[in-house]
Amino acid sequence: MIDRRHFVFGSCTALAGTALDAGYTAALIPPLARPMPSDQQAAGLHLIRPLEGYSPQIGQLVAMANWIRPSVLRAARGLSQEELDHLHDSESNTIGALLMHLAATEVFYQVNTFEGRARNEAEERRWGAASRLGAEARKQIKGHGLDYYFSTLQEVREKTLAEFRRRDDDWFQEAEPFFQNQPTNNYCKWFHVVEHEANHRGQIAWLEKRLPGHEFAAATRP
Amino acid sequence: MIDRRHFVFGSCTALAGTALDAGYTAALIPPLARPMPSDQQAAGLHLIRPLEGYSPQIGQLVAMANWIRPSVLRAARGLSQEELDHLHDSESNTIGALLMHLAATEVFYQVNTFEGRARNEAEERRWGAASRLGAEARKQIKGHGLDYYFSTLQEVREKTLAEFRRRDDDWFQEAEPFFQNQPTNNYCKWFHVVEHEANHRGQIAWLEKRLPGHEFAAATRP
Repeated sequence: MIDRRHFVFGSCTALAGTALDAGYTAALIPPLARPMPSDQQAAGLHLIRPLEGYSPQIGQLVAMANWIRPSVLRAARGLSQEELDHLHDSESNTIGALLMHLAATEVFYQVNTFEGRARNEAEERRWGAASRLGAEARKQIKGHGLDYYFSTLQEVREKTLAEFRRRDDDWFQEAEPFFQNQPTNNYCKWFHVVEHEANHRGQIAWLEKRLPGHEFAAATRP
Repeated sequence: MIDRRHFVFGSCTALAGTALDAGYTAALIPPLARPMPSDQQAAGLHLIRPLEGYSPQIGQLVAMANWIRPSVLRAARGLSQEELDHLHDSESNTIGALLMHLAATEVFYQVNTFEGRARNEAEERRWGAASRLGAEARKQIKGHGLDYYFSTLQEVREKTLAEFRRRDDDWFQEAEPFFQNQPTNNYCKWFHVVEHEANHRGQIAWLEKRLPGHEFAAATRP
């Protein structure tokens, strides 16, 4: 029986070694010899718990966000600008556009929950196409390397964390009609931001495998 | 400016009305006239908070699981057995196999965290192919309608919730070397079960749109 303790990050590859789906389950933690950029990585990425510097519920959500984000970065690791701009089919989003979409979604919820407003004109110009994806994004989001997308995600995330540090669990529980016009608390909006990254990571992983020269590049209609 | 309060469940379609990705953001709550099967749905699906009947941290994770699960069911709504068995390309997983994979993954973490063991032989026979996906799953998982997958997911989830009700946050924080052989607590393993559903939901939504007769059926290589 396989020794489960040696499983790589996550179950999809760990359970079999032959699973052909999400590559996000492969190793993400940098070697211990490299400096750990955050308290949590030093202490343990795989410990979901209230984090120091945040109120208890916010801290648990931050731990989850910190867990998901490296898996997203990994799904796009090493891709060239051409690969980031590659269209799988005429209705697809590029991996680059999907990465920008994650940042745009986070910005949407920043202004909604931190400032109680919608995006302004300047923000719409920067984030609108990435939010809406589709034809508009296929036209506008191209020609960038991985650093551009990764640094954008990082910039947006740093703002989120700074704002979280200034708030508490009462704020996290504040609710207004939002999703389906039902009472929706800030915790739910921010959980959506986190699970939304996982949603698109699944698509990024699927698309990445089918890039020219990649694992499933030869996949054909059966 | 769009009135954000009328956004449907989630941001992907809400932000634009034209976004072409995850359909999971469409309405999921059944009409109020129908009986609500759980406390949370009666009180509010979109309120992430400690739920009654569970310890505080476990309750928050259950609220998240309760939020994600309808979105998964929605992604596969109304699909026929042929559609559930449809292969997009020769390396793809079917939507049916992906749904079974979610249940299999949850079972893996049930036996791991509730009983401290790996799956036994009978469990391997029932869940092995679904765990590993790929060629094995393409061969074995077919010929079932939506009810089969939905009732399987429901059966597995009921077991999870019953076991959660018997445990507390101390148990949720218990850790062992697991992901990447690093300290991994039960909260992290169960968060992974939840985010893993979102991961594959993104793939299910992408595949569903490209089923014969569906929205992007005509999508061609650009």
